Amino acid sequence: LSQERIVRIERDILSKNNAYAQDNRERLARSGTFALNLVSSPGSGKTMLLCRTIEALKPRLPIAVIEGDQQTSNDAERIRATGVKAVQVNTGKGCHLDAHMVGHALDDLPLEPGGVLFIENVGNLVCPAAFDLGEAHKVVVLSVTEGEDKPAKYPDMFAAADLMLLNKADLLPHLDFDVGACMAAALRVNPRLQILTVSAKTGEGMAAFLAWIEAHAARRVTA
Amino acid sequence: LSQERIVRIERDILSKNNAYAQDNRERLARSGTFALNLVSSPGSGKTMLLCRTIEALKPRLPIAVIEGDQQTSNDAERIRATGVKAVQVNTGKGCHLDAHMVGHALDDLPLEPGGVLFIENVGNLVCPAAFDLGEAHKVVVLSVTEGEDKPAKYPDMFAAADLMLLNKADLLPHLDFDVGACMAAALRVNPRLQILTVSAKTGEGMAAFLAWIEAHAARRVTA
Ligand SMILES: Nc1nc2c(ncn2[C@@H]2O[C@H](COP(=O)(O)OP(=O)(O)OP(=O)(O)O)[C@@H](O)[C@H]2O)c(=O)[nH]1
Ligand SMILES: Nc1nc2c(ncn2[C@@H]2O[C@H](COP(=O)(O)OP(=O)(O)OP(=O)(O)O)[C@@H](O)[C@H]2O)c(=O)[nH]1
Ligand SMILES: [Mg+2]
Ligand SMILES: [Mg+2]
Ligand SMILES: [Zn+2]
Ligand SMILES: [Zn+2]
Repeated sequence: LSQERIVRIERDILSKNNAYAQDNRERLARSGTFALNLVSSPGSGKTMLLCRTIEALKPRLPIAVIEGDQQTSNDAERIRATGVKAVQVNTGKGCHLDAHMVGHALDDLPLEPGGVLFIENVGNLVCPAAFDLGEAHKVVVLSVTEGEDKPAKYPDMFAAADLMLLNKADLLPHLDFDVGACMAAALRVNPRLQILTVSAKTGEGMAAFLAWIEAHAARRVTA
Repeated sequence: LSQERIVRIERDILSKNNAYAQDNRERLARSGTFALNLVSSPGSGKTMLLCRTIEALKPRLPIAVIEGDQQTSNDAERIRATGVKAVQVNTGKGCHLDAHMVGHALDDLPLEPGGVLFIENVGNLVCPAAFDLGEAHKVVVLSVTEGEDKPAKYPDMFAAADLMLLNKADLLPHLDFDVGACMAAALRVNPRLQILTVSAKTGEGMAAFLAWIEAHAARRVTA
């Protein structure tokens, strides 16, 4: 396997993914659904953020969730406990969701007009950056426990995202974490990135994330 | 690209990697070097653990380090500040170190008989599991901030490791983290896994990790 052949294969995989992503995007536009793809390291708090977000938004908007994990249906079960529909996708050896998997999951979800679809990717700050799923935006979650240099060291994901949630802010008093330095590192990688500081545990900062979602969902692309 | 063809390509990549890993293993045995491959999610504390370990061990053993990251030489610089030699490997789009990269890094490191080589992999709880680098053991680091279900949800890495370091124990008083449940999840995936609870920040539990390293290094394979 020459390096050149591997590059060619990767390009083939990505272009096939992009075609499926385009199908998903058109399907979401037809049903008037606003889709977000949540990406992060394992354990930064994606599911806890989603549960809290859903509790706040479900009286106002139809919501559906796709959960990606190597194994278990733990996360889909946590989402279903909030009363909304969730489909679990297990990737096995796979390190990210792809648009083909998401297309199949969409077959099992009722998409209501004006609704929001949350896609929680496999916890991985590297590989999911390259895979468009047909979402409107990637939202990268970074926990303050991970250190302020993550955007500089894993830049592709922060370049691919439109919003960064700096989560677990409740732990800041117990850490040596420089919020300003972290935001600076992220903005150097992606000058257009929006950043919100939140705590899924205490609810601190969640009002701003909810407003972000509702404002973007109101402007969603429809077809 | 059929699924079958992708599986064939992945097998080719892994078998090529295994051949390079075997070369590394023989080279390490010839120089009498004991090598550990540290794997984890981004930000679980691999570099901080290494810095503290090196401070304690360097009066007693020759030490060298290979640092893997998508971008920056931050981690190699942190290691060099302890006074030991470190080579930074930047993987760019790549999500893990492979044995070929490690072979090249070995060309730039002086390996002294009876020494220890630490390889810090790219922060990624999925992809590095499949890639043998020629190390004696994989050591998986899990931070208590990541949640107790990570071994169940990302099982391949915990199956591939011989030792798990449960890091950031100093934060336990501020978290709802069930240490016993986490260990149970890890042992269900890998019944032979050894587990040590540590804090790279306070030094709590580090004596046990140092003893583990020295006891294993003393029994290392030589050729
Ligand atoms: N202190 C604190 N803990 C949090 C917060 N958000 C999540 N956690 C904890 O972080 C751990 C991981 O949370 P999850 O919601 O499972 O994270 P995730 O990103 O969905 O994890 P994966 O899907 O496995 O990658 C759990 O122990 C949560 O209780 C927060 O805002 N503050
Ligand atoms: N409270 C606490 N923080 C820690 C501990 N170990 C590491 N940290 C912090 O966790 C963050 C990440 O530490 P690093 O050593 O850079 O982690 P890493 O696994 O090497 O990160 P990458 O190489 O980027 O994947 C930093 O802010 C550290 O200060 C610990 O035992 N306790
Ligand atoms: Mg989750
Ligand atoms: Mg590091
Ligand atoms: Zn991957
Ligand atoms: Zn990978």
